[in-house]
Amino acid sequence: MATLKLPSTIPSPSEDCEQLRKAFAGWGTNEDLIIQILAHRNGDQRKKIRETYHETHGEDLLKDLDSELSSDFQHAVLLWTLEPAERDAYLVNQATKKLTASNWVIMEVACTRSSHQLLSVRQAYHAKYKKSMEEDVAHHTSGDFRKLLVPLVSAFRYEGDEVNMTLAKTEAKTFHEKICDKAYSDDDLIRILTTRSKSQLNATFNHYNNQFGNAITKDLKADPENEYLKLLRSTIKCLTVPEKYYEKVLRLAINKLGTDEKALTRVVVTRAEVDLQRISEEYKRRNSVPLDRAIAGDTSGDYEKMLLALMGHGDAC
Amino acid sequence: MATLKLPSTIPSPSEDCEQLRKAFAGWGTNEDLIIQILAHRNGDQRKKIRETYHETHGEDLLKDLDSELSSDFQHAVLLWTLEPAERDAYLVNQATKKLTASNWVIMEVACTRSSHQLLSVRQAYHAKYKKSMEEDVAHHTSGDFRKLLVPLVSAFRYEGDEVNMTLAKTEAKTFHEKICDKAYSDDDLIRILTTRSKSQLNATFNHYNNQFGNAITKDLKADPENEYLKLLRSTIKCLTVPEKYYEKVLRLAINKLGTDEKALTRVVVTRAEVDLQRISEEYKRRNSVPLDRAIAGDTSGDYEKMLLALMGHGDAC
Repeated sequence: MATLKLPSTIPSPSEDCEQLRKAFAGWGTNEDLIIQILAHRNGDQRKKIRETYHETHGEDLLKDLDSELSSDFQHAVLLWTLEPAERDAYLVNQATKKLTASNWVIMEVACTRSSHQLLSVRQAYHAKYKKSMEEDVAHHTSGDFRKLLVPLVSAFRYEGDEVNMTLAKTEAKTFHEKICDKAYSDDDLIRILTTRSKSQLNATFNHYNNQFGNAITKDLKADPENEYLKLLRSTIKCLTVPEKYYEKVLRLAINKLGTDEKALTRVVVTRAEVDLQRISEEYKRRNSVPLDRAIAGDTSGDYEKMLLALMGHGDAC
Repeated sequence: MATLKLPSTIPSPSEDCEQLRKAFAGWGTNEDLIIQILAHRNGDQRKKIRETYHETHGEDLLKDLDSELSSDFQHAVLLWTLEPAERDAYLVNQATKKLTASNWVIMEVACTRSSHQLLSVRQAYHAKYKKSMEEDVAHHTSGDFRKLLVPLVSAFRYEGDEVNMTLAKTEAKTFHEKICDKAYSDDDLIRILTTRSKSQLNATFNHYNNQFGNAITKDLKADPENEYLKLLRSTIKCLTVPEKYYEKVLRLAINKLGTDEKALTRVVVTRAEVDLQRISEEYKRRNSVPLDRAIAGDTSGDYEKMLLALMGHGDAC
């Protein structure tokens, strides 16, 4: 469930644009007003605001936001204002750059979006970067990581609920054999993980648990420091229990000595319209602290206000 | 250029449906009438005919065609009547079945369709088979073939004309090194082949030719009987000069002792609306016989009439 809170009556895009212009005008910026508007509009509404802004003022709202705001707050607002597919394309592109490289972000986008959303991300990637997403991912990764990530971002999984139980049993056995042999990047293991539907994989992992006595992610903990194994475990979590994966990302980001703002922003912004409510529940259960309180304790100023607004705090107007 | 010939005025879908019903009615089927109609309608028009047929008669045109026609003629008409994406999904599905397995057909669909067409095929595959296409391809292939084919069918290549010449040089060198080492299924070689845009690959292979003195397909002929190498060469041809690839498929199908009707039908049906004209020119140049004459010499009856109609023979009405 989403946390995004919309006002009972939505102002027209031109009214919103006018207010945003007011927020930018004069000496100093009215950050509260920006939050009040943008943090309480859904994807379609933000898209219309950007279009209207461009038509009315001949300028790109993102550019104006970029010049008016700064640091973590700026990053959160810009990321939020982008359309989801465009935003994911941007996140993956950043994740393939040397200084901001992250196999995690690539895997996360590939595994937690629906098949059609992932396609839209790939289309947005073409439009923005004049290259294919898999091309950049393949070019910037290597070894086992590449072997896993390229098919993950190229997948177009079937999304029906149908489950083939015979197949689930066979493939649970395959997983078990490969894991016993420590063949973690085995072709078959990666093939199953990157092509089967999420429902089918869920059945396979359930069967694994029943048949072999441990959750598969537990059996994949043989070498806790192995980065590839970590990514493999997270992949399985993202495909089957994304809220648990995200809870952990948030926990690590917040508990870190010096908050990891990049990760915190990414999760709040990309999930606010999807399942942030569910992630919050998971967070509360695991940390005995409500997520909004944890975020408030670790952030400040406009950045804090923005994140909390996306979590449903404050009045939408 | 397409060979499909449309009448100057297209009858309405309901007129076409009525004519088709007449062709099916009574004792014996009027095959000529079926050809006259269906072989002279484009994809959109055939789609409307199928829809109208279903609305008016409550039956599936394909099923009626299936019960009225037989053998190679039946196969050609059914394949032609399907929508292109649906047809390609069917071809790939057949190519993953034991008795009709064909790595060639899988590669052909993956490499000669546009990026968006290939996506549509993957969507049609979901709808028809309740699985993903890459899932079946991965499941039914193995070793080097799987390593090449799965990323090929999963690709969503950038389609712009932009070419990075520096990259083309680097990657031509990579190809040359791998080929010298006989590392034909090397990760980098497959990565480049399955992710770069067709324009970029074309530049890379041109540079290969200029720099190393041979066409890359020639250097890949080290072991002429190696099936994987054959597939690799065909992949390169499909990505850069599809008409030459198709010319060869037709040449082999026609020159075979006992024509290969499956291949012949597939090429004529899938290319009639695309580039069969260009393929015919290539065929004439290479075999000194016009393609239509070669087909007429090797086929007979309604099957012959159907293929020639798709090649633009006869009056469209």
